[in-house]
Amino acid sequence: MQRFCTLGFVLGLILMVFGLTYALPIATSLYFDDGMADHFVRGMSLNIGLGSVLAGLTMRFRGDIKTRDGYLLVASFWILMSAAATLPLLWGIPGLSFTDAFFETVSGFTTTGATILIGLDALAPSLNLWRHEMVWIGGLGIIVLAVAILPLLGIGGMQLYKAEIAGPIKDSKITPRITETARLLWLVYAGITLACIASLKMAGMSWFDAICHAFSAMGLGGFSTHDASVGYYDSPAIELVLIVFMLISAMNFALHYQAVHLGSLMPYKQDAEVLPMLALVAFSIWLCSWYIWDNGVYSTFLESLRHVAFNLVSIATDCGFASVDYDKWPPFVPWWMLYLSCITCCTGSTGGGIKMFRTLLLWKQASREMFSILHPRAINPIRIGDMPIPNKIIFAVLAFIFMYFISVVVLTFSLIFSGLDAISALSAILACINNAGPGLNQVGPATNYQSLGDFQTWICSAAMLLGRLEIITLIVLFTPTFWRK
Amino acid sequence: MQRFCTLGFVLGLILMVFGLTYALPIATSLYFDDGMADHFVRGMSLNIGLGSVLAGLTMRFRGDIKTRDGYLLVASFWILMSAAATLPLLWGIPGLSFTDAFFETVSGFTTTGATILIGLDALAPSLNLWRHEMVWIGGLGIIVLAVAILPLLGIGGMQLYKAEIAGPIKDSKITPRITETARLLWLVYAGITLACIASLKMAGMSWFDAICHAFSAMGLGGFSTHDASVGYYDSPAIELVLIVFMLISAMNFALHYQAVHLGSLMPYKQDAEVLPMLALVAFSIWLCSWYIWDNGVYSTFLESLRHVAFNLVSIATDCGFASVDYDKWPPFVPWWMLYLSCITCCTGSTGGGIKMFRTLLLWKQASREMFSILHPRAINPIRIGDMPIPNKIIFAVLAFIFMYFISVVVLTFSLIFSGLDAISALSAILACINNAGPGLNQVGPATNYQSLGDFQTWICSAAMLLGRLEIITLIVLFTPTFWRK
Ligand SMILES: [K+]
Ligand SMILES: [K+]
Repeated sequence: MQRFCTLGFVLGLILMVFGLTYALPIATSLYFDDGMADHFVRGMSLNIGLGSVLAGLTMRFRGDIKTRDGYLLVASFWILMSAAATLPLLWGIPGLSFTDAFFETVSGFTTTGATILIGLDALAPSLNLWRHEMVWIGGLGIIVLAVAILPLLGIGGMQLYKAEIAGPIKDSKITPRITETARLLWLVYAGITLACIASLKMAGMSWFDAICHAFSAMGLGGFSTHDASVGYYDSPAIELVLIVFMLISAMNFALHYQAVHLGSLMPYKQDAEVLPMLALVAFSIWLCSWYIWDNGVYSTFLESLRHVAFNLVSIATDCGFASVDYDKWPPFVPWWMLYLSCITCCTGSTGGGIKMFRTLLLWKQASREMFSILHPRAINPIRIGDMPIPNKIIFAVLAFIFMYFISVVVLTFSLIFSGLDAISALSAILACINNAGPGLNQVGPATNYQSLGDFQTWICSAAMLLGRLEIITLIVLFTPTFWRK
Repeated sequence: MQRFCTLGFVLGLILMVFGLTYALPIATSLYFDDGMADHFVRGMSLNIGLGSVLAGLTMRFRGDIKTRDGYLLVASFWILMSAAATLPLLWGIPGLSFTDAFFETVSGFTTTGATILIGLDALAPSLNLWRHEMVWIGGLGIIVLAVAILPLLGIGGMQLYKAEIAGPIKDSKITPRITETARLLWLVYAGITLACIASLKMAGMSWFDAICHAFSAMGLGGFSTHDASVGYYDSPAIELVLIVFMLISAMNFALHYQAVHLGSLMPYKQDAEVLPMLALVAFSIWLCSWYIWDNGVYSTFLESLRHVAFNLVSIATDCGFASVDYDKWPPFVPWWMLYLSCITCCTGSTGGGIKMFRTLLLWKQASREMFSILHPRAINPIRIGDMPIPNKIIFAVLAFIFMYFISVVVLTFSLIFSGLDAISALSAILACINNAGPGLNQVGPATNYQSLGDFQTWICSAAMLLGRLEIITLIVLFTPTFWRK
């Protein structure tokens, strides 16, 4: 019982703090006079009011947060925030169902950036800002989750990353560590966001669009203020700025902190993930540009290069902006992009998927097994960078990848069962579980998730949450063991 | 050098013995007077002649077969037999390319049963028998491979199955064990084949068709003497007989030997794989029958049940007969069937894919990891049946599954790269690597692999060999470690 009071107290506090974030859309609404301010004020009051009541009722009975409560806290956090954030959308967009509104807010907070809304260009500016702010807040949450919380919870090999920033804390209480880490990362994240806003403005966006798209790029969300996404601007300069900031967001933010702290690029060079990621992306851009140019999609190699570079980086980093309808390209390229979305992003970034470090670990483990078939007695420990990796971590990583794969299969079959074609189903699930955004065919870059039925929408929402919470954090809640005292 | 002479000697002997198998198509050709006897006599002479020369030249320099030579021997065996067996096809079918002929013989010896030939009903009976005989020989080879050879080579956790029939042999020489095991299994295999031929004859097939289809069912090959496959007969009795024998062939033949030896059904009951396999198949038949009946594909549930039962068992056991064009059913069912083809068959059967025991092991390992996240200090060994499974085996199984998955991704992307659509590409690779046979769309049950280009045909041949040699046996040959002294 104390456990749930503790949980209630923390969630109450979070709701109250979250209430403050409504200030930005309220200001926006007043500035643009789009008539939405009332909705946001009501939402703000509800959040702060409910949060205070919840925190007040549970305050006396609360205890310390234990590691094990972390799973429930993390899952409740994302689901509660998404549910609360639907209110302004429901009030501001007549006819929007809760299913669709919840999909949109989950998509925001998980930084998936898949949308069910059509007519974004005509949407009230405050609602558009609200969508993008969710991505930005979600992105910050994800970084803190990856750098400070998951290592303590022991999810999918993230134990390796214990003590990355704030130093080892032997206590099983998680509050002090999270607070300190969050403070440092918040500063780095906000700083890079400001640089991105300024760069986008200089590249030709309006201030409003620059802020929205910077929020989207930093959280690797991929929401846009235009139905045509970044294709609306048809501007190589904007695309180049976004490519740079998407790649920055796909790196570990703990590295950015170290780089700023030391005033040096060495942290990037020494990192095990950054160079493989950049090499993979560069090779893929070259290969795919050549392929679609060779297939006659664009008349010049340079044009191929421009469009492949932007859209491939966007999907590989799990951002999800689109500048052209790449679903019309020969299928090799969009499928390769979806494949990259599974493996490219670094740990501690705002991207999703399996992550580069797990991919590298899996690769090394497989090579070790091939070697040990021929030399059964050889002992051959695995290293990532300079770290030797214990078997315990390797098992945890393999379990993560297996659960990821099982989830993809089960969710894809659910969509096919519900009547969706196989390509839309598989691509939708990959795009959602990797928090990338656009899939192919019926959920491709030129359309969106609007055409899905209610059941299908809920499956996709579940996929986004599963992916964002690194699969196991969520699945563990459904095991009997978790609920046994 | 001695190593290659030993290899040459064994392959020479195998070619000579293989030459004897041409007697059956020669007899068939003479009986039906189809004019192909000359081709088979020439093929027989070439095989025995070349085999004698190879064995004669290398005899003086040969040594014992070492475990490590096993990888090369197994791979050379399947490739050499397939290459040799193309001759009668090339001589007997004017205009057939070597690429296509090799695909057909690899498809036979790996018991995949995918075909590039059209007009099977009009094909010379001896050529049709030849195709089916390859499946039958391949099936026997696979059983011996799984029960006697792979456990010694330590592939994908098969070490567990050491000493299943012939008792532990501590020597690293593999010849005595293989000889004894092969003799016992051959008797069981031949006995069940005779029962299958008799049952098919009683169900209404001609003797010739009964022999061909029994060969196909025992090897889980799926070749047929008719373009319409088993749909040609439109006979529930024949379908029922085939369902029974396909399921028998999908079980471990070491179990059949034990059951005959003990005169009891206990071995099946005690086995870790048989009951899960039957339960999975039964559940899937019920689910899919209901689904396509609910979707209005057939007017009665019984008709749904009949067609689902036959085609689902056929694909799940990696046999590959078809009685209707199930690619026209709502996509959930054919995809579910393809999914089953990956996991359903038992170790030591003539089927392909990951195999039930690895699926069970993977599932238990994942559950153990979920448990150990919440109880990090608990020690919780995995058991299959009564056997505790050491971590070494678990790593080997996980490595197998990872290499399987990597192979599917790489080969599927090769086909998509070559211009095939995603559904045909993925389904073709799954159907080939699982040695199931028909895929979907362009390579679906109503068509075949004829329409593929040369590059695509070679990729599919590679997939069949990879799957049949349990992935790692083949991949290990491409590692530098293997070729280092
Ligand atoms: K995204
Ligand atoms: K087959």
